[in-house]
Amino acid sequence: MNPDGAPRVGIVGGGQLARMSAAPAAALGVDLRVLASAADESAAQVIHDVVLGRHDDMAALRRLAEGCRVVTFDHEHVPPAHLEQLEAMGVAVRPGPSALFHAQDKVHMRQALTDIGIPCPRWRVVSAVDHVEAFAEQVDWPVIIKTSRGGYDGKGVWLVHDASAAADVLAVPLPQGAQWLAEECIPFVQELSAQVARSPHGQAVAYPVVRTVQKDGICAEVVAPAPGLSADRAVQAQELALRIARDLNVTGMLAVELFDDGTDLYVNELAMRPHNSGHWTIEGARTSQFENHLRAVLDLPLGSPDAVAPYAVMVNILGGDVADLYSAYRHVLARDPGLKVHLYGKAVRPGRKVGHVTVVGNDLDDLLARGRHAADYFSGVIDE
Amino acid sequence: MNPDGAPRVGIVGGGQLARMSAAPAAALGVDLRVLASAADESAAQVIHDVVLGRHDDMAALRRLAEGCRVVTFDHEHVPPAHLEQLEAMGVAVRPGPSALFHAQDKVHMRQALTDIGIPCPRWRVVSAVDHVEAFAEQVDWPVIIKTSRGGYDGKGVWLVHDASAAADVLAVPLPQGAQWLAEECIPFVQELSAQVARSPHGQAVAYPVVRTVQKDGICAEVVAPAPGLSADRAVQAQELALRIARDLNVTGMLAVELFDDGTDLYVNELAMRPHNSGHWTIEGARTSQFENHLRAVLDLPLGSPDAVAPYAVMVNILGGDVADLYSAYRHVLARDPGLKVHLYGKAVRPGRKVGHVTVVGNDLDDLLARGRHAADYFSGVIDE
Repeated sequence: MNPDGAPRVGIVGGGQLARMSAAPAAALGVDLRVLASAADESAAQVIHDVVLGRHDDMAALRRLAEGCRVVTFDHEHVPPAHLEQLEAMGVAVRPGPSALFHAQDKVHMRQALTDIGIPCPRWRVVSAVDHVEAFAEQVDWPVIIKTSRGGYDGKGVWLVHDASAAADVLAVPLPQGAQWLAEECIPFVQELSAQVARSPHGQAVAYPVVRTVQKDGICAEVVAPAPGLSADRAVQAQELALRIARDLNVTGMLAVELFDDGTDLYVNELAMRPHNSGHWTIEGARTSQFENHLRAVLDLPLGSPDAVAPYAVMVNILGGDVADLYSAYRHVLARDPGLKVHLYGKAVRPGRKVGHVTVVGNDLDDLLARGRHAADYFSGVIDE
Repeated sequence: MNPDGAPRVGIVGGGQLARMSAAPAAALGVDLRVLASAADESAAQVIHDVVLGRHDDMAALRRLAEGCRVVTFDHEHVPPAHLEQLEAMGVAVRPGPSALFHAQDKVHMRQALTDIGIPCPRWRVVSAVDHVEAFAEQVDWPVIIKTSRGGYDGKGVWLVHDASAAADVLAVPLPQGAQWLAEECIPFVQELSAQVARSPHGQAVAYPVVRTVQKDGICAEVVAPAPGLSADRAVQAQELALRIARDLNVTGMLAVELFDDGTDLYVNELAMRPHNSGHWTIEGARTSQFENHLRAVLDLPLGSPDAVAPYAVMVNILGGDVADLYSAYRHVLARDPGLKVHLYGKAVRPGRKVGHVTVVGNDLDDLLARGRHAADYFSGVIDE
């Protein structure tokens, strides 16, 4: 407890999402404690109060929760039974285990969304190649095959064009408790993300709907708001996200990733935490996703999600062949004094998300050129 | 050293200025270490790497500096001889001791500014009442009397209307090494602050000039840009600040507090660090004063100081009779979803700066009303 009465929030996971939560926590005067797996993990470098331990170790989770008003998450990997134990101890867990399970198990998520009438790609659980073939007869090849649990950043997802490729995927060992999920491949014209924050007493706010661009299954670039999306379609996406948050009893931030095929919207994935598609909100929105996540899990009134400029562009910095990101600063910062850089303190490995850049302003083409240039320079893709 | 090659910056002092430096340090991927006098000091609550010790203890300063690329400051109170010892050890100290001395000793500052032709109130060193009387014959009563060292937030400054009042002030014990300084009382129409950032290689940027409103010698409110200040006068203030930064070889942020008597500008005070008059830059400028201070002391290219909206208003939260600031959140945040709150984690004492609020937008009257309401509510001055 701070001298000024503020509570403590515990975050499970020491990645960049926890790291970027430190700034709004300090501004709000909220104590932050993080459960990190190593002392040099991204968030553990910058947050004062660090508990070292694994997210699936009940004793470590208890050490994190001790004296916290609420426990929340940097990732979805905590086993539900552990969270139920924390709740049984009287610790507030937000989002709660039954809501979070929708982000942990894609079959559970598909069933729940289907039950409440949310449009999804057609889907079925498969356990043999003839299931996939029967499904492809309905939806046509190619088909998406996913593990229901444990995938991220494109891992655990395959696009298969025929039965032979499907057989290869089904031969991959499944993570514990996982099933194979086959999904219709939506011929999308763009991918969208609709983010909302929702608090335990039911207040909710919807952020502008953004376009996300993936490369090799990893989010590469986000444009806020999604260019060319009509106001009607944007509201439709926001309403979908608000309805999912309410019906699944989500608390904190919810990101709903959507396919837009030019006519209809289909839910792809859910994330119940701050999300890569919302990093632009740090500079581009009145209240960042990180601040609203903290406000929501503390059941404080939510902040305005309004954009502060006509456009914001966020480009991820992926690790390249340059280990010393700092050495890029002289060039990048001198070239673009209005650019905002966020590095995560992570060792550079090829393809790993090690930071992002954001630019906000009026001219989308200019913002895209500036953001991509800076990210490419950090990655070593260009050298001038 | 971070895995991505970023350096470490050491800050002497664990107050709110160091606390608010944590966010841009984390974003830039720069390691931050703070020398705090107690574990529950404002910055020590949120920064991972804390050294406990006094700012005038050479051993503590050495522990801070160990492994830092540069040492900088949250306040001006480190004895110059200590900083010279750090420099002799090969540690970069920014601003350097000879520049910083201008912010530590007001007589030294007045002499230096006078030498380079910067307009100041008329001034003289006094040590007896007849000196004050002779000075008042030139400049008229009332006269300002200050200690040359150790004053802050209105402490160490007196407005005296006659010789008898002057005698009372001169009877106050002087801080060690201090002299009495008498200054002309400028009948100002407004007080201004001109902030610049300057790097060791000489790059400098000037922020929009702001109006500051003091109550009882403490900064109460800041409006950016200063309303009614002509473009010519604003540029004149920026040029003064840039000239002072260059001629005094300042590195990092410099705040030049100015009196505007409607015709001319006069320098009141200097601060060589982030300053209360620049807190609005966190939300209101492309690059905050805290980020540009870090960039400047690391000799990185500086960020754009441009405003992101027509107006920003910052109002300080002064301690009142409510100890639990957090209890005000339900009202303040629900009433104004666009308001940004910064609490410093400090125990509430009457009149103590314990936080601030910032609002940015187009309508100055609306922003002033919103900022003042929130600050008054936190202080307990109003209860609805």
